[in-house]
Parts: sequence; structure tokens; C-alpha cells
Amino acid sequence: MPGNTFGQLFKITTFGESHGLAVGCVIDGMPSNFELSESDIQPDLDKRKPGQSHLTTARQEKDQVKIKSGVFEGKTTGAPILLLVNNEDKRSEDYLDIKDLFRPSHADFTYQAKYGIRDWQGGGRASARETVARVAAGAVAKKFLQEKLSVEFLTFIESVGEVKASINYQEVKASDIEASLVRCPSPEDSQRMIELIEKTKAEGDSIGGVVFGVIKKMPKGLGEPVFDKLSADLAKAMLSIGAVKGFEYGRGFLASTMKGSEHNDEFYIKDSQVRTKTNNSGGIQGGISNGEDIYFRVAFKPTATIAKNQNTIGLDGQAVVVKASGRHDPCVAIRAVAVVEAMGAITVMDHYLRNK
Amino acid sequence: MPGNTFGQLFKITTFGESHGLAVGCVIDGMPSNFELSESDIQPDLDKRKPGQSHLTTARQEKDQVKIKSGVFEGKTTGAPILLLVNNEDKRSEDYLDIKDLFRPSHADFTYQAKYGIRDWQGGGRASARETVARVAAGAVAKKFLQEKLSVEFLTFIESVGEVKASINYQEVKASDIEASLVRCPSPEDSQRMIELIEKTKAEGDSIGGVVFGVIKKMPKGLGEPVFDKLSADLAKAMLSIGAVKGFEYGRGFLASTMKGSEHNDEFYIKDSQVRTKTNNSGGIQGGISNGEDIYFRVAFKPTATIAKNQNTIGLDGQAVVVKASGRHDPCVAIRAVAVVEAMGAITVMDHYLRNK
Amino acid sequence: MPGNTFGQLFKITTFGESHGLAVGCVIDGMPSNFELSESDIQPDLDKRKPGQSHLTTARQEKDQVKIKSGVFEGKTTGAPILLLVNNEDKRSEDYLDIKDLFRPSHADFTYQAKYGIRDWQGGGRASARETVARVAAGAVAKKFLQEKLSVEFLTFIESVGEVKASINYQEVKASDIEASLVRCPSPEDSQRMIELIEKTKAEGDSIGGVVFGVIKKMPKGLGEPVFDKLSADLAKAMLSIGAVKGFEYGRGFLASTMKGSEHNDEFYIKDSQVRTKTNNSGGIQGGISNGEDIYFRVAFKPTATIAKNQNTIGLDGQAVVVKASGRHDPCVAIRAVAVVEAMGAITVMDHYLRNK
Amino acid sequence: MPGNTFGQLFKITTFGESHGLAVGCVIDGMPSNFELSESDIQPDLDKRKPGQSHLTTARQEKDQVKIKSGVFEGKTTGAPILLLVNNEDKRSEDYLDIKDLFRPSHADFTYQAKYGIRDWQGGGRASARETVARVAAGAVAKKFLQEKLSVEFLTFIESVGEVKASINYQEVKASDIEASLVRCPSPEDSQRMIELIEKTKAEGDSIGGVVFGVIKKMPKGLGEPVFDKLSADLAKAMLSIGAVKGFEYGRGFLASTMKGSEHNDEFYIKDSQVRTKTNNSGGIQGGISNGEDIYFRVAFKPTATIAKNQNTIGLDGQAVVVKASGRHDPCVAIRAVAVVEAMGAITVMDHYLRNK
Repeated sequence: MPGNTFGQLFKITTFGESHGLAVGCVIDGMPSNFELSESDIQPDLDKRKPGQSHLTTARQEKDQVKIKSGVFEGKTTGAPILLLVNNEDKRSEDYLDIKDLFRPSHADFTYQAKYGIRDWQGGGRASARETVARVAAGAVAKKFLQEKLSVEFLTFIESVGEVKASINYQEVKASDIEASLVRCPSPEDSQRMIELIEKTKAEGDSIGGVVFGVIKKMPKGLGEPVFDKLSADLAKAMLSIGAVKGFEYGRGFLASTMKGSEHNDEFYIKDSQVRTKTNNSGGIQGGISNGEDIYFRVAFKPTATIAKNQNTIGLDGQAVVVKASGRHDPCVAIRAVAVVEAMGAITVMDHYLRNK
Repeated sequence: MPGNTFGQLFKITTFGESHGLAVGCVIDGMPSNFELSESDIQPDLDKRKPGQSHLTTARQEKDQVKIKSGVFEGKTTGAPILLLVNNEDKRSEDYLDIKDLFRPSHADFTYQAKYGIRDWQGGGRASARETVARVAAGAVAKKFLQEKLSVEFLTFIESVGEVKASINYQEVKASDIEASLVRCPSPEDSQRMIELIEKTKAEGDSIGGVVFGVIKKMPKGLGEPVFDKLSADLAKAMLSIGAVKGFEYGRGFLASTMKGSEHNDEFYIKDSQVRTKTNNSGGIQGGISNGEDIYFRVAFKPTATIAKNQNTIGLDGQAVVVKASGRHDPCVAIRAVAVVEAMGAITVMDHYLRNK
Repeated sequence: MPGNTFGQLFKITTFGESHGLAVGCVIDGMPSNFELSESDIQPDLDKRKPGQSHLTTARQEKDQVKIKSGVFEGKTTGAPILLLVNNEDKRSEDYLDIKDLFRPSHADFTYQAKYGIRDWQGGGRASARETVARVAAGAVAKKFLQEKLSVEFLTFIESVGEVKASINYQEVKASDIEASLVRCPSPEDSQRMIELIEKTKAEGDSIGGVVFGVIKKMPKGLGEPVFDKLSADLAKAMLSIGAVKGFEYGRGFLASTMKGSEHNDEFYIKDSQVRTKTNNSGGIQGGISNGEDIYFRVAFKPTATIAKNQNTIGLDGQAVVVKASGRHDPCVAIRAVAVVEAMGAITVMDHYLRNK
Repeated sequence: MPGNTFGQLFKITTFGESHGLAVGCVIDGMPSNFELSESDIQPDLDKRKPGQSHLTTARQEKDQVKIKSGVFEGKTTGAPILLLVNNEDKRSEDYLDIKDLFRPSHADFTYQAKYGIRDWQGGGRASARETVARVAAGAVAKKFLQEKLSVEFLTFIESVGEVKASINYQEVKASDIEASLVRCPSPEDSQRMIELIEKTKAEGDSIGGVVFGVIKKMPKGLGEPVFDKLSADLAKAMLSIGAVKGFEYGRGFLASTMKGSEHNDEFYIKDSQVRTKTNNSGGIQGGISNGEDIYFRVAFKPTATIAKNQNTIGLDGQAVVVKASGRHDPCVAIRAVAVVEAMGAITVMDHYLRNK
């Protein structure tokens, strides 16, 4: 039954509920002698945290991370690292009215079916709050990959609802993403997305979106053949995020419409390195990185929580009407940009250690 | 480094190369006292095997499976089951001309980068031939799920290249799929697909496609929260198949354009069961099955092997031209229908055992 | 590299250093809907805690456990359970003089060789303090096994140094163990052991001992054939405790001197149950429990820390003399009784879940 | 439930029954580009095989191993290696009379209790025949460790029944072990052991024994802190062998009678290396190798199968008398020397890869 661990050699185990005492994770497998402090992790948590703009949930959490073990005199020791974030803005009373019913398209019903019990406070374990732990662990992985291997991560919003930005990822700068409230590097498209989210929020509704991830300067040879392909583990990493309904890398679904002669990437030598002229493969061939950029898309459905009346049933099967209180996240994909980046980093870190 | 095992409680470990002595797998975790014989497995292998029609590779393999352990007097004993298929149509000489070069978009280069050696005979371990083992193990899982839990699997081709069939999966019958050379339940669309594949093959080219999978009569409560969501493991299962570039379930990428009020599935009671009126979720909520049909799409790129001249480089970095010998598979998605179904069954079986 | 997790389905991951901020663990796999509170765990921690008598280390720790996740309204939810114990009596200054040397037979040298860094405060991660987490997790397992399956655990000291108690484990009562400062159910032998430990302590020395473990009312059929035998996992569990040098179960090493006709346990029927007349097997046959009592011995070496001058070398290889400050544990086996019992319970719990 | 895999990075999965078609294993994780052929493996199998002298079972098996995958042009490729040994001397008819009863101290009853079915032919999966696969995999690990790291393995019989050889392991030569029918390096003690086994066999009885294992020239730093200590994994490896009842390393149980001042190993510098003057620790401190010799003992009980009348019960609970047919192994420890050595090599290989 245990399902709260990700990774083989960079292994994270997360814990905590939305309105419980704390959320966090244990990282087991972090290489020793690497400089690490809470300030390396906090900036990524700040990108994920609720209440950061009027476009996200209004819940107020500082999400201050504490390193409780595994770091000694500023360096990792090889021992497991406990990252702990206390919950502050707990409001179980806000959820009393949903205690005895199943919210549509939430995990309320399936948890009840599986466990015979559920923590109904804000979704309990099924809440997006669990991703705090992922972002914290991802920040550790990113720091290592950036400093030791120069790997770069770029993650941004490509679309919100029907508003799709037309972006050449190779021209995107991190600062362009940071400059946008919706983490979309195109200012014009950002504005259209913001307007759509504001309108959706005003209607008490929510909207889906697509996150685009890029991993640059990848080392060659990462990924294990057959089941633990780098692409397969990225897919699992992304689909393990709540609200994700699809994943594609390289040309993705579009590749299914192409001919081999169009899709194949020609090898050549550049600066004494084996390179490909095109990169339809998305940096992974046979499940193993080839050194080209990895790029992928992750599709998020609209948040299930909406401030509109919805028909559903209670625990006893009686028909009831439910309406959320109003702190809902109109477009969960925005804050999930940080989560996608974290899961990408954790996956690459794990495969880096597996390939050593 | 090991990456040849899939599953936690229904655990398969595959082995074998394209033109080596044999391919197969060990299944560890099969429940005891279940009737099993080679004839339960062979029909699924026949659906995957090469040379079954003019639309696939011309390689001739009977793919006859032998159960070498774990079954006693016709029943499983709980001991590991070795499934072994000897390779017959081995032609290493066919590959002598590609021995010293990297075929575009094959795993030749990444294997060489990772291992410093590669079995160049038909792709070696990276060959689609490895999926023989998956289909064999999948047949075992399917038999169990069908007999013990009445779970049903329907898997078919939805599109080949730009030719997309318009199919309501709820009306598809297994016999419609079986009747089609391209495993598409729509006869008209099948015909268009066949023509496209014939044309592509005649051009020495290959073409991609999309496989659509359906799992009906799913038990509720399968899947583990957080990382080992049923959806995440399905994604990994599918992306672990060579040539797969994308996975989506339920509304998939389309869900990213929807509003919560459109996408949410309303709960109600039908025949004393909790059901949903719509099934945009695709049968999985919070990573756990809710009893509705699971449906998903798997995108296959065109086979990298084509009978056209392509520029590439040799092991020594010299520019060379490569052209395949002519036994290539013009649309690998067709035979992969059996592989997708097998991986779906293996994933569900694993989660069934995890949920007991 | 990760090695801080034990168990497959009842999975514990421990963290924390001797003089770091906290120690504890995450339990993943605990069945849902089981009543659990901190007061179920504290009594076992009290048996392990330092400073409980003049026969143990003088370090003062209350070892108060907090449940930070996974329990909702007094019941487990199936989500991971974080058990956290803050360190209070941290005295890193006590260890400044050993910072730059390798204490004989400690893990100082091997950690340095492996990691290139070590937390020298009281042994850091290699400290017996890590076992706080095991005892806490073991208490959870024990409560479940006792309440749901009536399994009983009896664990006691059989010998300290050359002082060996002559005990028929079948006559031992838990209260007899509790009544002894050294956790030996024989009052006379306890007294001899206490005297030996007092004398040893006065000499600034330490002494080894043997812990005897009994598991009664075991369900039949627990344990997996081949590698994950119940006996093999018990052996690993025990040898994973610091200072343990040997494990035997049933007749153990003595069985190597016996004939088959002496050692074999005759089957017969008693109260409609298959039982054995003797129990030389120690309750496990072919790696699987047969329902008879499991009994085993665990050998502890003397604590490496002693208050005597010892020759060793510094980090730079120079010869130095080291002498511990005086808070050393003269017989670590005494407090380890609780750890052995915890690891036994965790192992049985894991196999119970694996056998469901 | 799966329990047929050992190791994390050098992962072996065994399969096969005593009188089934074949036994063998898949090795996943073998480093690539290493020369390997069947002739590297066969000599170790010959040391384990039945019928090699009048002191073992009379079953006739050539135990010829075939490498079916993972090796290409004489070198490993990094792909999984299938090692297959066909069973030849299958005699299921020999076991018809034990089909419906539980042999005392065999796994017959526990398998039946666990699985509700058992392969009664010579013990089926519970047979020592399963160890063929371990010895084959161990030979691969040994070759790697010897050639790449100069690690040396010495494994011999220290005692048979009450006959204990007085051996200083540091003076033992491999050729002395090879020269002895009972794998005891002392010729005089060998003779006494042979006589004891002959006498025991003549009486239709069996006798236990102790295997002594030595691993020389170990690299420093192998083993993971906390649960996956090298010592803990060695213990599990050994206790996973059928008939093993105890394991100790270094001073083992004797250490429990020692004082810290006696047991502690003093560090000093020799040839610029950190060494210890004594080696009471047995080469492992804090669960991690320190570069000194690892030495350990493994206690084997007498084989359960004896050619004497024994009381037991049938499947239906009726009292019956059972007597083995006469091909029994009078001292299973002798052939198990090869198995202990193999499991030691597999464990070290796994930790070598984990420490890279």
C-alpha cells in the first residue's frame, strides 16, 4: 500500500495533510558534502505558495521550511534530510459543511471507498498542499544539478483555457517567466490569461491550463532502458501531480501524425559532440537522454472546487447541493508551474544518481 | 541501474534481445491456485507477433511461449513464473551494415553513450521485440482480472497519421477490433488507414498513430494516493513502451481548456452504487479508481527505421548515409495495440494486489 | 545509496542525528481506521530512553513523541504518519575533543571514508539515538498486531557478559521483565547482572549482552519464500541495530551440532490445529511461520565508548589518546531490549501486510 | 508478495522448482562491457552440484548453465542476464508417497498454509535446488569483484555436528579447501568430519554444520547506514538460505561476553592506510566496511529429510509415518559452502554498486 515515496536513489517520502499540523518530506540519498540551507529552498516555495496574488487561493501560508536533519555545519552529510513546513492558516471549520458529502471530481469519494475514512479538512492528504514537500525537495535537486552539472530548468504556462501563447521555448528567459503573474513568458498572452482567470474567478468557476517544461544542458546517458526510461519516469512524476490529465514530450501527440522521414532527427558532429540537427525526439531516445533539450507539456484540468452550486450526494447517498466557500484556486496550473519544475528536477536527479 | 522490472506486487522482470537466443520474463507475485496454461497466453502473443499481415514487419516468428516454472498440475503455485519465447528468425547478418553507425532517432547512440557497448543486431535490447514479454505477462494478468473481477479491456487504433476514426468507445465491440487488420473498430476508417499504411510502406516510410485504451468494470479504490496514483502508473507503463511520446486519460489535454463547471462529474446513486453522470475524469479521481470506465490515449511516433536514405554519422563521427533493408514496420502502433492492453492489465493487476 | 527505509508494505523511513534538532520517522503503509494516539507510543519510548536508571547513559531526554500527520480524529487515515521527537539535551561541546579523531570501533572512520564528512556530535547519524524512531514505529506495529491478531511480544535480557540467566522463555511474564532494572525476568540473575554492570561502569568500561526475543500467537503463513523469508527479514532487522554481531532463531548455532532425527519437529493435531510436538524450528519453516512461538537471540557487543584511555589516530593520521567524558552506556543491550522488540514487531507487521 | 528478488542495484530474481523444467535467475544491474561466458560460471556450479561425492545426495544433475541474454560477443551489455539450468534427473514418482503428508521440519506445511497448493515433487520451490541460481549469479559477482577490485573469497566448513576444526582463517588457502571432500581446510578435521557424515548417512540420519566465510581485500566504505548495513544485508543473505538458523560476524556471540576495552579495535596507520591492530569488528563498523577482512559464521541445521521412520500427519490430519527414499543429503552444509560464498559475493557486489 505505501505510495508516498518517489525515486530510487534520490528518494523522497512526503507526508502531511492540508489542514493538519505540518507538511514536508524526507529526502534519502542526497549526496554528501553539498552546501545546503533553508534559504536555498525558500524561493521555490514562495513561487508555489498560496495567496501570492489575486489569481490564486486566498489561503495565507508563509510556507517557511525547516531543515531538521541531514545537514551539518551547512553541508549535507549523506543522512536523510527532513524538510518540515508547519501549517498556519488552518481552518477546519471552513469545511464542516462538506464533511458529509462527496464534492464532484474531488478525491472525497475514492478516498472514502479505499480507506473507509477521510480527513475532510480541505481535502486532507489529497490536497494540492502536499506539493509543498515536492517543491522543497525539488529545490534541493535543482541546486545540485545546476551547480554540479549546469543543468537548467525553464518551466512556464503555455495556455490557460483556450488562451494559448505562441512561444518558442528556446527564446524564453527565466526573467520573462518571473515577470508574469501567470508565469507565461509572453507579456501579451499573460495579459489575456490574467483576464480570463479574473473573469473565471468572478463567475465562481475554475479553468484548466498547460504547463510547458524545458530541461537544458542535460548530460547524455540518463535513463534506464525498458521500464525506467527517463521519459516514463517523467510521465509518472507529472501524472502524480493532482489535476494532471496528460503528458507529452518532444513532438508528443503531434508525432502520431508524422512520417518517419519527417520525425527522425539527423545526427551530426558539432563542437566534437554528437548532436541532432532537429530535436523532434525531445532529448530522449530509447528512454535515455541524448544531450539535447528535453521539453514536455503537462495538461491540468480545472480545479474541482468551484464557488457554484453543484449537485452531488452525501455519505448516505442523499442528493445534496454543494458550493465552495470562495477561497478556491481559479487556475491551479499557475502555482503548479513550480511543482512541475520540482518533479522534473527530482526525476533527473534520481536518474543522474542511477547512472553514476 | 536495474530498470527491467515493473510493478510492486505483480512484478515482471523482462529479458532478451531482438536477435539473441530468447526473450521473456519472470512474473513474481502471481496469486496461487489459479488455472494457467500456455494456451491462455498464446492468443495475445499472436496479436503482437510480426509477419501477421502485409502491414507489419516481414520478420517471421511463431512466438511460442513456454511456462518453465511456477505452474504445477495446471495451477499457479505462488512461485515465480518464467515465460520463455525462443527467437527463431534471427538474422544478425542483416544488420552488419548498421553495426558501426547511429541510426537516426534509434536508441543506438544513447545506448552507446550509456553503456559503451551495444548489441547492434536489430536494436538488441532496445528493440520492440522486448514487448513479447510484456504481452505474455499481460495475458496472465488479463485472465486473472477477467475471471476473478470481470474487468474488461478494449484497446484499439484511433488514428494513423492524420486519419482519425470518430469512435464512441462505449459502442465498440472486441469483435469489431478483431475484424480489422489495423485493429480499428470502424470498418471505413480501417480501410482509410490501411491505404495510408500501404502508401507509406511503398514510399519506404513509416507513420505514427494513436492507441485508445478502455478498462471497463473496474473495481473502486484501486490506486495509491500521491506518487503511485493509478493514473501515474498507467502513464509510466505506457511511456515505457518504445516509440510512445504522449499519454492522456479522461479528457486529457482537452481538459486544460475546460471550466470546472463543465468538467466536474456529478455524483448520483444508480442501482445502489455511487456513480457519476458524466465521466470526464476517465474513471480515476485523486489517483484512485471510482468504478467508472477508465479510458486513455497513447501517442506513437513513426518507427525510426525507414527504407529511405538518411544522413547520420558513424561511431567515429564520420558522416554516412543509412537505408534500412526493407523489413521495417510501417506503423508500429498497430502491433502495439496488444502491448498497450498488456501494460494496462499489468498495471491494474498490480494495483489490485496493492489494494487487497 | 538510500538505506534509511525498512519494510515493503509497512515501510518506515527514519531520520535525525544524536545532537541534531530532532529524530523520528515516517510510517507509510499503516492500515486506515485504526485508533492511534501519542499515548500508545510513549510507554515504549520510555523503556528505551536514556537516563532511566544509573545503569544507562546519563543523558536526559524526555523523548516525547508527536504525531504530525496521518491521524485524524484519533484514527489512522492510511496517509503517512510522521512521528517526531525533538532532541533536548544536546551538548555538542561535549564532543569537541573527538571532532578530529576516530574513536576505536565507532563508525567515525567508516562514515568519514564513505561520505568525506561526518557529524561528530555524539556519533551523529550512527548514534543509538536513531533507534528512538524504530521504537516509536514498533509501538504502532505492536498495537496493531496485539489488538487485531492477539500477537504477543516478550523480549528480555538473557545474558550480560558472562552472566547468563537460565530461563525457560515459556514461563516468562512481561511483569517479571518490567520488574528488573536490566530487563531480565530472573530476579537473582538480574541482581548478578546489575552488579556486573555497576562494576564495569566503575571501571570506565562497557560490557556486551544477549537479548532474547519471543513472538507468541503468530499467525501461520507469514514470510515469503526464498529471499524474503520471515527469518531472513528478522535477521536483517536485528543486524541493522548498531552493536549487534549475531542472530539465531530456534535452536540456532546449537542446531548445527544436532542430527535430523533430534532436530525435526513432529507434526500432530491439537485442538483441530496443525501443531508441532517440539519447536526446535523456532516457529518458522521454509521461511514461513507455522504458528508456533518464534524465539531468537540477538548478540550485542560492548559499547565502543568507554571512559578509559585508548590509542587511536586523528583525521591527519597522527597517533592520539582518547577517553570518553563519562556519560557512556555501560551495557547498551539493556536499552536495546525495546529496540529488538520494536524491530520484531515491524518485521512481523510488514509480513502480515504482505501475506494479506 | 513477491520475494524472489535480492539486491538493489545488482538485482537477482530466481525461479524454478526442484523437479520442474528448469531453475535459474535473471541478473539485472550487471555493469556493461565485462567479459563473461558460461565457463566463468560452471566451476562454481560444479562445487554445489549433487552427486559430486558419496557424502551428498545421489541425484544426478550436470547443472549446465546457459546464458540466454545480456551478453553480446562475449561481453555484458548492461541488459538483464538470463541464466538457465535445465533439470535433468527429475523423478516426480519418487515423491508420490509424500504427496499427501507434511514431512517434519520441511516447508510442506507452511507452503500449504500460505498458498493452499504446493508442488510436492522434492520440495518444489522450497528445495535447495533453488540455490543453483544463486551460485550462478554469485559466480558472476565474484568474477567482477576479483577482476576489478581484487576482492577474495574464502569459504569453508568449520564444523560438522560436534566435530569442530580449529582453524586460523588467515592461514587458510583455497587449495586446502578444494582438497577436502567436506571443504574443510584441515586434513585431519576433514577426515573426522567425513567419518561422522558416513556414520550419520549409514544410520539414515543427517547432521548440521557451520560454514565460515571470509572476504579479503574489501574496499572501504561499502554498506549503507541504518537499515541497509553491510552486516544486515549479509545476515539477510545468509538467513535466506534454507536450513540456516544463525549468523554472526566478527566476534559474534562471543562479543556479548567481552568488555569494550577488550573488543575495541585500535586504529593505526600502516602503509599510509588507516588500519586496525585487532579485527574483533570483523571488517564492518557502523554497518560499513573498514577495509579489514570480513569474517562470519553461518549455522546450518541438519537436513530435514532422513531415511528413518518419523511420525507426522497427512493433509487430512491423520497420523502417518514417513521415511525418505534414501537419496537424502546427510550434511547439507557441505554443498552449501558454495551457496554461502555466492550470497556473500552478491551482497558485496550490490553494495559496491550502491557505493559508487
